[in-house]
Amino acid sequence: MRNYDVYSENCPTRLLLDHIADKWASLILWKLSEGPIRFNELRRKVEGISTKVLSQALKGLERDGLISRAVFATVPVTVEYSITPLGATLADKISTVTRWAEQNIEAVLTSQQEYDARGA
Amino acid sequence: MRNYDVYSENCPTRLLLDHIADKWASLILWKLSEGPIRFNELRRKVEGISTKVLSQALKGLERDGLISRAVFATVPVTVEYSITPLGATLADKISTVTRWAEQNIEAVLTSQQEYDARGA
Repeated sequence: MRNYDVYSENCPTRLLLDHIADKWASLILWKLSEGPIRFNELRRKVEGISTKVLSQALKGLERDGLISRAVFATVPVTVEYSITPLGATLADKISTVTRWAEQNIEAVLTSQQEYDARGA
Repeated sequence: MRNYDVYSENCPTRLLLDHIADKWASLILWKLSEGPIRFNELRRKVEGISTKVLSQALKGLERDGLISRAVFATVPVTVEYSITPLGATLADKISTVTRWAEQNIEAVLTSQQEYDARGA
């Protein structure tokens, strides 16, 4: 096995980090880890994401093997997204970062106010 | 305490996620968790980052209270960055994501090849 290093500009892990160290990818993977979801429902849950950005993010995550897409022959067609076993292992790590944000936001807001007050 | 939710567009935690679910912030915080480091050394370690982007990222992380900046009156002036105790708790979570990328890159590359071969 090669010795991969995210600090190396041309390492494939750096490109992968670009996909997964991303706000939208984090929110999508964490939501999908709760269960399969349809495009429009996901768009409503992830407030503020545009149809275009969501669509691109889902394609990228599917290409990376982190989510899968199923099409059902209903009228109109139903498209459902699920997390893969590989994606679930990542969602698990990502959820610790998003939970950290929720748990530590007050300390961060205090720091931002102090920084701004210093006029730094 | 308020009920924070990263899925809400206007929640301050969403803004915070925008800072921390980021490739450069992840690489900087993880590197700083190894010990204090000077600007130019950090720039060399995080391959591919420009002076401007590194400078902006460091300001943002300092404002969030995740890193601190110390100036020493040498000639020329020495500027050193260190992780704060708050930042260290985040670096710990982030390192699990970057390690995941290094450990699972081969599965991801295989998936990408299969996806591209399908012409999906």
